Amino acid sequence: MVEYQTESCLIATNVNLIYMSGRVFSGYAFISADTDPLFFVKRPVGLSGDNVIYIRKPEDILPILKERGVDSFSSLGLETDQLTFNDIVRLQTAMGDPSITNATSILKNARLTKTPFEIDLLRKAGRIHCECYSQTASLFTPGMTDIDFSIEIERLFRQKGSLGAVRIFGSSMELHMGSVLAGNNAQTPSPYDFAMGGAGTDPILPISGNGTRIEPGMTVMVDVGGAFTANMSDMTRVFSLGTIPELAYKAHQVCLEIESDIVAFAKPGTACADLYNMAVEKAAKNGLSDYFMGTIQQAGFIGHGIGLELNESPVLAPRSKDILIEGMTFALEPKMVIPEVGAVGIENSYLVNHSGIENVTPFSNEIIAL
Amino acid sequence: MVEYQTESCLIATNVNLIYMSGRVFSGYAFISADTDPLFFVKRPVGLSGDNVIYIRKPEDILPILKERGVDSFSSLGLETDQLTFNDIVRLQTAMGDPSITNATSILKNARLTKTPFEIDLLRKAGRIHCECYSQTASLFTPGMTDIDFSIEIERLFRQKGSLGAVRIFGSSMELHMGSVLAGNNAQTPSPYDFAMGGAGTDPILPISGNGTRIEPGMTVMVDVGGAFTANMSDMTRVFSLGTIPELAYKAHQVCLEIESDIVAFAKPGTACADLYNMAVEKAAKNGLSDYFMGTIQQAGFIGHGIGLELNESPVLAPRSKDILIEGMTFALEPKMVIPEVGAVGIENSYLVNHSGIENVTPFSNEIIAL
Repeated sequence: MVEYQTESCLIATNVNLIYMSGRVFSGYAFISADTDPLFFVKRPVGLSGDNVIYIRKPEDILPILKERGVDSFSSLGLETDQLTFNDIVRLQTAMGDPSITNATSILKNARLTKTPFEIDLLRKAGRIHCECYSQTASLFTPGMTDIDFSIEIERLFRQKGSLGAVRIFGSSMELHMGSVLAGNNAQTPSPYDFAMGGAGTDPILPISGNGTRIEPGMTVMVDVGGAFTANMSDMTRVFSLGTIPELAYKAHQVCLEIESDIVAFAKPGTACADLYNMAVEKAAKNGLSDYFMGTIQQAGFIGHGIGLELNESPVLAPRSKDILIEGMTFALEPKMVIPEVGAVGIENSYLVNHSGIENVTPFSNEIIAL
Repeated sequence: MVEYQTESCLIATNVNLIYMSGRVFSGYAFISADTDPLFFVKRPVGLSGDNVIYIRKPEDILPILKERGVDSFSSLGLETDQLTFNDIVRLQTAMGDPSITNATSILKNARLTKTPFEIDLLRKAGRIHCECYSQTASLFTPGMTDIDFSIEIERLFRQKGSLGAVRIFGSSMELHMGSVLAGNNAQTPSPYDFAMGGAGTDPILPISGNGTRIEPGMTVMVDVGGAFTANMSDMTRVFSLGTIPELAYKAHQVCLEIESDIVAFAKPGTACADLYNMAVEKAAKNGLSDYFMGTIQQAGFIGHGIGLELNESPVLAPRSKDILIEGMTFALEPKMVIPEVGAVGIENSYLVNHSGIENVTPFSNEIIAL
């Protein structure tokens, strides 16, 4: 907080409350450099702990802080990239009209490297994620659409402990558990900032499967979030029906080589933009630029941080200023879309350790026959 | 907009973009009293239409408007109850620093009464919702936990066309498809502003089932959202295993009577607060106040508007100022929680017509034996 010239923060978003307290509650966490966090709780009733203080409304906070000797502050961190305009205005007023700094940035920075506890949760999620994909092909039956297949995969993930709901940063980002893309639907551009698109079944949620019947000659890309623990894994595997064109295999192999190159190169200190550029160059060298990260619309990144949300820092993108640091966790997802065939490529979750990066979702990278 | 003293609005949230355009896109809808809406689109590529204008960033909008003869405006509606503080600040600056009014309120008001098109979508959702609940009991097998049962119900809903993702107003509101509560878990207070709680399986998503094994003597309340169309239905049914205590049946009957009383009384012009008070009084008259809308924590409403989001206006709560208007759609959900047994009660979706309210989710209201 010192770096951000902020004495104290008042946190209100579910995701940052989980980070501070281990759970969701309706209320606020007051953090300051001098004291332990205070948890101002509206709901649920019955939470206990030394630092738990029940309130009815945010206006109750400042008088309680004053009783405890915390006087006015010149600056207060509020989550200005997450809370609504009117919530921020109300909180600023309720807290005595201090100047406001961006607590979203402060917490984003704190959450950038993971604690051993968080890394254990990610490893656990990764293990379950692999288990799910090892059983995915067995869920397919001929005649299925992408949606039929997706429903069975969702059920498997839920049976293995997925919470179902996946947290994504950004109020415009929406997804139901993940994405299953078959055939040409993988080309359909989406409004969302995910690596791949898909039309969805309704323009009110234009992402993922659209009811395409899975036919011989198609690939099916399965990218369902690993919401098995607070620290989610992210992982994609590609399945194929019948014989698919050589171009699709070649493109898939190039994606795997991009991943291997990055694994060989990345370590603490590596610039994420360099990793993106390595990928783009490899795709170009193999004459596959037109297919890289989409066709009609191409995603501008090949990886993203993972944690409490599916899209954290760092970002592996051309203008990213992120540098790898030990303890970061990110998903690496070099992918290509082959018209009339579908999507190919790979996604695994990585942990930055002291000397390199470690795959926490180790499972066969090849295209899996249905 | 005239009522809100707003010349124009710039809309950016998915839900209001759907309302204005029928689909999600990444971008903005510019609405003014004088002209047709203009759709400023960032993604996806390839949308067409007279009023579709591609942009890279919100700063591109004002110059384009000026070219089209729309000069500066003294006031501009922005979604200040939905967009983040920093998004609002950026948009306000990008639009030439006009004074800002609350476009969330304007759109909320517009969305308050539904068009015939929306009502048809709700009726369709309601029909499918009933179909799902008619098949729900057959999904139960002895030994199931609430989560096992929930997973099979989710699969059924998806097979019948549910989009899975359910839109809920309020950045702190989260849910995976819906809630399945068995036995005493129905008493567990939740941080979320839903009618019922439940511990969930992890404190990072403390709502709905917690792994309770469904045993004889328990009720199971199934409240899964009807995300089958843009206009969602909401509906709850209660299931029981073995013999449940007389008190549970009595409480259930009182909930049904509350619903009947409200159906007999409600019509355009009725105050929603009166409907809430009728319910509270009936519960009290029957000596059931301690169980009404929860035990340890009691919800402060018995119904809520439904539409593009699961929690719109009107609200049936003691201090609600909402008055029923023809074309409103809302869920009515008088419920009770019986300690050691579970939740009972009912939820149906209603349309306010010219003379009363109509149930668009007609299906047996009784407790259904598993």
